[in-house]
Amino acid sequence: MRAVDVIMKKRDGGALSHDEIRFFVDGVTSGAWPDYQASALLMAIVLRGMTPDETARLTDAMVHSGIRVDLSRVPGLKVDKHSTGGVGDKTSLILAPVAAACGVPVPMMSGRGLGHTGGTLDKLEAIPGFRVGLSLEEFTAALVKTGCGMIGQTSQIAPADKKLYALRDVTGTVESIPLISASIMSKKIAEGIDALVLDVKTGSGAFMKTEADSRMLAQSLVSIGNASGVKTVALITDMESPLGRAVGNANEVAECIEVLRGGGPADLIEVTLELTKRVLVLGKVATSLEDAGRLAQQAISSGRALERFGQIIDMQGGDPRVIDDLSRLPHVDTQEIITAPRDGFLTRVDAELVGRASVQLGAGRDRVEDAVDFGVGIMVLAKPGAAVRRGDPIVEIFYRDRERLERARALLHQAIAVGDAPPPARRLILDEVH
Amino acid sequence: MRAVDVIMKKRDGGALSHDEIRFFVDGVTSGAWPDYQASALLMAIVLRGMTPDETARLTDAMVHSGIRVDLSRVPGLKVDKHSTGGVGDKTSLILAPVAAACGVPVPMMSGRGLGHTGGTLDKLEAIPGFRVGLSLEEFTAALVKTGCGMIGQTSQIAPADKKLYALRDVTGTVESIPLISASIMSKKIAEGIDALVLDVKTGSGAFMKTEADSRMLAQSLVSIGNASGVKTVALITDMESPLGRAVGNANEVAECIEVLRGGGPADLIEVTLELTKRVLVLGKVATSLEDAGRLAQQAISSGRALERFGQIIDMQGGDPRVIDDLSRLPHVDTQEIITAPRDGFLTRVDAELVGRASVQLGAGRDRVEDAVDFGVGIMVLAKPGAAVRRGDPIVEIFYRDRERLERARALLHQAIAVGDAPPPARRLILDEVH
Repeated sequence: MRAVDVIMKKRDGGALSHDEIRFFVDGVTSGAWPDYQASALLMAIVLRGMTPDETARLTDAMVHSGIRVDLSRVPGLKVDKHSTGGVGDKTSLILAPVAAACGVPVPMMSGRGLGHTGGTLDKLEAIPGFRVGLSLEEFTAALVKTGCGMIGQTSQIAPADKKLYALRDVTGTVESIPLISASIMSKKIAEGIDALVLDVKTGSGAFMKTEADSRMLAQSLVSIGNASGVKTVALITDMESPLGRAVGNANEVAECIEVLRGGGPADLIEVTLELTKRVLVLGKVATSLEDAGRLAQQAISSGRALERFGQIIDMQGGDPRVIDDLSRLPHVDTQEIITAPRDGFLTRVDAELVGRASVQLGAGRDRVEDAVDFGVGIMVLAKPGAAVRRGDPIVEIFYRDRERLERARALLHQAIAVGDAPPPARRLILDEVH
Repeated sequence: MRAVDVIMKKRDGGALSHDEIRFFVDGVTSGAWPDYQASALLMAIVLRGMTPDETARLTDAMVHSGIRVDLSRVPGLKVDKHSTGGVGDKTSLILAPVAAACGVPVPMMSGRGLGHTGGTLDKLEAIPGFRVGLSLEEFTAALVKTGCGMIGQTSQIAPADKKLYALRDVTGTVESIPLISASIMSKKIAEGIDALVLDVKTGSGAFMKTEADSRMLAQSLVSIGNASGVKTVALITDMESPLGRAVGNANEVAECIEVLRGGGPADLIEVTLELTKRVLVLGKVATSLEDAGRLAQQAISSGRALERFGQIIDMQGGDPRVIDDLSRLPHVDTQEIITAPRDGFLTRVDAELVGRASVQLGAGRDRVEDAVDFGVGIMVLAKPGAAVRRGDPIVEIFYRDRERLERARALLHQAIAVGDAPPPARRLILDEVH
């Protein structure tokens, strides 16, 4: 088999066979396929597409480029939740302790923030001492002990994805539903989970800007998961505005603790609860969504979920006292408020621009190698639809550096808009795919 | 400017600006664009296409990656002829001495055979002593003295094309009219010519298999040439069957000498004459095609063209006595004849398969680095349409090695077909584009 023949087949719109896809993925992993041939094939895939069968085979080949984690030591059905990425998207830090407290083990391999979207690993590291770099041994031990392990992707998981993603990033071949699907699902399948709940974000702050694209991606992801024996469901949820109030790292952890204490913003509670309910049903500790909702509510109202979060933090080296004392989280005192420029209704708090402002403050990164400042961030004080008067506080900025503040402020001024009438109401949960 | 942004623009179907194309071509030439980015853009160009404007800009940038040869020392309008490649396609070796004898200088930079198509450089090197590796100084001197110089592409001519072609060859990005056009025309424009006659082949043995594709390529080439100040016309000519009788190297030279002596096969004479007439008109030594035809015929019938061929050979270090004594050309004595399997009409002598048989004998090459055996080759003794009787000779094989003979014979058996009725007549000259 020759690489150039595989490339030409896809260039001409053909469907690649199992052997051809395996040849490509193995070649990328071993280095037998030079980057210039891999990138030519990637571009042909972006422009010619892949059938669901091809995408499933690509995912499978990427899983097999590394190990599939053996979690048989962990009793029960293991269920993970994965989001395609958003702004203020912190549901994992609530969902994981709630599900664990309800008896569903949650093995979670997450990523770091990049561009305007935040990442679970950065948020966890805002907790003093928290280690996300556990070995697979420690990861399994944490799952057995606390029902949860939260780590980064190890080099043994889908190494082909790591190589391909680095190449896609510099060759304009990121935007492809088959390639995105295989990248996400290969890592999730290799985690060793039994079931998966996906949160496919849609809107300004999401990777997929339209509901139609988000639905296509959700369908692709769900069909791959189910075909690979990982029972998968997806919710399509709104990412036009940031989720909850906090955008940053330590402030997002604080907001999660607030929700685990029984408080917190309604939109964050709603999205987290809908995702958690599906985790509990797939984990077979609840027989229906209603049942699951009751279980989750009880775990929070009883304080068991918050307590479990403390145990999870403790198990991974973090300071568990943060759950009782938010002042133990990093924070900055210097702040500035952006106010409503006029009377009216808040019509927009644009998620992407808020996310980019957060990066400017230092809470996120534009390049993989950049460091993150855990203490800075943004609090969104008013949500689209709110009636506001001129001078009302809309966004609060916590900054460390005045130059960075200037850049963030400019973006935030663009992000918000006040009009004469309230904007059309947006649903938070747009659809469910399974 | 970032390479990834240029790639994404083309991926999304945009037209690249002059600056973006220049950035790409300069980056490929200098190495600033890594191969994996160049190949991603090439694939996007193959699948998204380029406008005529973009193709002209790409050609221009490729010309400027090297030097444009200064032929101002050579008096008269310099006219080259270029073929897109075929089997038995030896017109250059007749056209150049005829045009030179008629007063039109012909600066010709040619290529080597690759795959089933032959190359002018290999044919010339079949003449003992002939040097195709002249310096540009020697090339100009040859043009001044004999009105003709026949060399290979030097490293100073369109170096970007050399790099891009090597990459296209291994990334499935050869088949693209804009990329093919820019590759051909950048080299021709850089030659320093005033006008160009193109022979765009169509059919089984051609790069373009259909007349529609050949016409598109011809239009693209002609429009680039004319936009760059090189007056360009193209003939679209048949390449379903080999041109003339000889396919190989030394045997093709012998056939050219036969034509220059006033003999030779009718199809070869017709195509060569039509191309030559256009060279003479563009070179302004003839006022009409009729006038040009008379001039060319006289150059041959008077013996001046043959004599000029001897001078050209002599000037480039070859043995000019070959024009009087064909036995001075390399040859092999071992031969075998393939005969008609039944009575009927010869319906097919497939150019591509004959070309591949010739490669098997050693007269061509599958890889750039392979050596060529000048003495072996094939003589096509009967043309499609001929009435044949069982046992009549159709193809004569001159071979050096029995194993190679076996492989060539198998291909030649596939190449020929005898039917009950003559095939539909094919025109040799299908169209003219200017």
